[in-house]
Amino acid sequence: MKPGNPYNAQCPTRLILDRVGDKWAVLLLGLLRKEPMRFNALRRHIDGISQKMLSQTLKNLERDGLVKRHAIATVPVTVEYSITPLGMTLAKAVDPLRHWAETHLKDVQASQRRYDGSQKDAA
Amino acid sequence: MKPGNPYNAQCPTRLILDRVGDKWAVLLLGLLRKEPMRFNALRRHIDGISQKMLSQTLKNLERDGLVKRHAIATVPVTVEYSITPLGMTLAKAVDPLRHWAETHLKDVQASQRRYDGSQKDAA
Repeated sequence: MKPGNPYNAQCPTRLILDRVGDKWAVLLLGLLRKEPMRFNALRRHIDGISQKMLSQTLKNLERDGLVKRHAIATVPVTVEYSITPLGMTLAKAVDPLRHWAETHLKDVQASQRRYDGSQKDAA
Repeated sequence: MKPGNPYNAQCPTRLILDRVGDKWAVLLLGLLRKEPMRFNALRRHIDGISQKMLSQTLKNLERDGLVKRHAIATVPVTVEYSITPLGMTLAKAVDPLRHWAETHLKDVQASQRRYDGSQKDAA
C-alpha cells in the first residue's frame, strides 16, 4: 500500500480524516486551544452536543494524543481537559478551513438557493 | 446571533463545517482539482465509497457550488464532474490538514497504542 493514501480504505490516513472530519472534535480543539476547561464548561460552550457525544469525542481525542485529561483531587473529583502540543498543531492546521467557511459562507448559501430554485423549476 | 459562530447550532457556519467534515467530499475535491472526471472513474478512485454515497456527495457538492455537473450528449449520456473556482479555494484550504495528517500519522498511532495499553492495564 502506498503510504499516506487516504483514497485507500485500509490506509491509516483515512482514520485521521475521520477525526479531522468530526465537527465536534474540531469545535472542542478550538475551545481548548484557548484554555483548559472542565467537562460541563465545554458542554455549555458547544450548542447542541449531548453529554454522551461530548464524552465520546473527548475520549477519542485523548486516545489520539490531541487532548489530555486531568483528574483533580477535589470532592467531588474535578476533571479538566487541556490541549496537547500535538493537538495545537492540528488546531492551527484547521485555521484556513475556518477562515474559508467565514469568507465563503454567503457564496455557498447563494449557490444552495440557486440549486434549490432550479430543482423546483424542473419538478 | 453572532455571525460566523459555529458553536451555535443555528449558525450556518456549522453547516459548512459539516461539508468540510465530510471525508468523501474532501476526497472528491482532492481528485477533481486535478482534472474533471466521470462518475465511474471517481468511484474507482475512492476505495470503499458506495454508488449511493458518491451520488449523494456529488449532489451536495453541486448544491454548495463546489462542483459542476456536465451532461455530454453521447449515447448513452456521459456525465462528467469538474471543480468550480469556489471548490478550488476549499480544496486549497484543506491542504494544511492533509499535510498535518501525513506528518503526524505516526504520533497519533503511537498515542493510540499507549492509550489502548493503559486501558488494558486498568481493566
